[in-house]
Amino acid sequence: MENFADRLTAAIRVRATPAVVGLDPVLERLPAELHHKTNTIAAAAAAIDEFGRAVLEAVAPAVAIVKINSAFFEVFREAGVAAYYRLIAHAHRLGLLVIGDVKRGDIGSTARLYAAGHLAQPAFSDVDPTSIPDAVTLAGYLGENAIRPFVEAAQAVGRGVFILVRPSDPGADEIHEFAGFGGSVRFYEFMGRLVERLGKSAALIGDSGLSCVGAVVAPKDATSTIILRKQLPRTIFLVPGYGAQGAGAAECRACFRADGSGAIVNASRSVIYAYERPPLAAKFGADWRACIAEAARDFAADVAPLMNPVSLIP
Amino acid sequence: MENFADRLTAAIRVRATPAVVGLDPVLERLPAELHHKTNTIAAAAAAIDEFGRAVLEAVAPAVAIVKINSAFFEVFREAGVAAYYRLIAHAHRLGLLVIGDVKRGDIGSTARLYAAGHLAQPAFSDVDPTSIPDAVTLAGYLGENAIRPFVEAAQAVGRGVFILVRPSDPGADEIHEFAGFGGSVRFYEFMGRLVERLGKSAALIGDSGLSCVGAVVAPKDATSTIILRKQLPRTIFLVPGYGAQGAGAAECRACFRADGSGAIVNASRSVIYAYERPPLAAKFGADWRACIAEAARDFAADVAPLMNPVSLIP
Repeated sequence: MENFADRLTAAIRVRATPAVVGLDPVLERLPAELHHKTNTIAAAAAAIDEFGRAVLEAVAPAVAIVKINSAFFEVFREAGVAAYYRLIAHAHRLGLLVIGDVKRGDIGSTARLYAAGHLAQPAFSDVDPTSIPDAVTLAGYLGENAIRPFVEAAQAVGRGVFILVRPSDPGADEIHEFAGFGGSVRFYEFMGRLVERLGKSAALIGDSGLSCVGAVVAPKDATSTIILRKQLPRTIFLVPGYGAQGAGAAECRACFRADGSGAIVNASRSVIYAYERPPLAAKFGADWRACIAEAARDFAADVAPLMNPVSLIP
Repeated sequence: MENFADRLTAAIRVRATPAVVGLDPVLERLPAELHHKTNTIAAAAAAIDEFGRAVLEAVAPAVAIVKINSAFFEVFREAGVAAYYRLIAHAHRLGLLVIGDVKRGDIGSTARLYAAGHLAQPAFSDVDPTSIPDAVTLAGYLGENAIRPFVEAAQAVGRGVFILVRPSDPGADEIHEFAGFGGSVRFYEFMGRLVERLGKSAALIGDSGLSCVGAVVAPKDATSTIILRKQLPRTIFLVPGYGAQGAGAAECRACFRADGSGAIVNASRSVIYAYERPPLAAKFGADWRACIAEAARDFAADVAPLMNPVSLIP
């Protein structure tokens, strides 16, 4: 079973960009032609599903990875959950790797269930095996027991996890900058240690030298990013915050290793709602699919140089 | 709109017990007669659904509140999610209050979606309004922005939230005992402060003097429970850890206010799998429903005295 870190490394080399497009669609921002008939949850989920398929098809030529945020599907209950899994399968048909952005975190006995449901091979004959994501995001705030079942499931099936270490939302700073051990360790470093401990076993490290246990690390400030990059040498950073959340490619640089590996950069709203941006709308008119495709290409090109070794960066 | 804390207070007074039965069913432990035909996810979800309905009916005469853990339904994808919401509606028909144990926690923009999906009045004509839980559990580790949308939704519709402050799993101790501010504040106290800040507004406090913003506080050690009870005078504690997880009624006492209000106690596995216990199985034979009903009565009676004021406790 190929290690997830190796699969990811190969995939972003083929596309020559560490870009990840995040799919977190809300009804209010769908293109006008999909706005019809959303008074029922079934119709709403169908519109979100149709939009999601179109986004996947528009971005697949430009990027290697998509991240699908389950919250935006759960809001439509069983119809939304069905769409979430259908979109994962569709992304796989398009050759994309898929990160299921579920941010689950619960005590050990519950974590085992979540791991079975979200990451392991399906135990049921009526589950499409291509609808399992290649990795999931996790909240590790209930400790090692809450994460280990996912790591074990991931390793067994060549999949991965990304554990929240340094979230992008400024509202999370109060907690993640909580300074312990006499003020010498910030909470994000503490969570970083947990990730390092969980992911360093040789069985989890691929030929790429990277672990299938990754971390979500937003480029908040140069200090924290440098500390975490050093503390977690074998960890792939899933970097949120690019685009609509304010970070540019330059801010993301410190999330990469010196050789240009070890990180992927996510943009969601700035790509999937690209048709709302006047310059793109002027260029493509009502063709919102073309707007999204162009925004994905621009994003992929913007972050592509981050994969160069530091020595090649001007 | 009646405050959730008042509705909860009235409900546990009617049943004269602060007992909450947690529903977190796994296929492997279902009664033999429900074990048939679980090779498809649809059949598995149907068996879990049938078991869940039976548990609700068996415990409804003894307790006022049930907690339904969504993880155990999500594992069956859309079929499980549909069962989760059907069971909430069924619990309401039986006169029970329902806590949706979802432990969600995500950044602000996503939290708004989750709040809409899990707690607010449904915006769609094909959603059964009785299938919304009366409260949900939340992980507050991404800070105030991740919680506030839920608090606002809860207040607007007379519902509540329970924020994880002191989880029961020993594996969570490493994080929750992380000592900050020069070692003077444990992480659980820090999370307690967040809950107090979010829940103290007069608009959130009911006639009972309690807030619709509650906390999950396991009785881990006398010190932490006393600290948190003092720090959070208006907060309802949802107390996990009774029964299968090891705590007895005595350990739960410090989670209550001196007047016997302010806490509810959850037991899950020790009640819903009561038919596995030899004494009950011997008494009721294959009637697993009767075993569950008896275990619920025993549990309700065991924790009932916790509602007495301290002065009445021997």
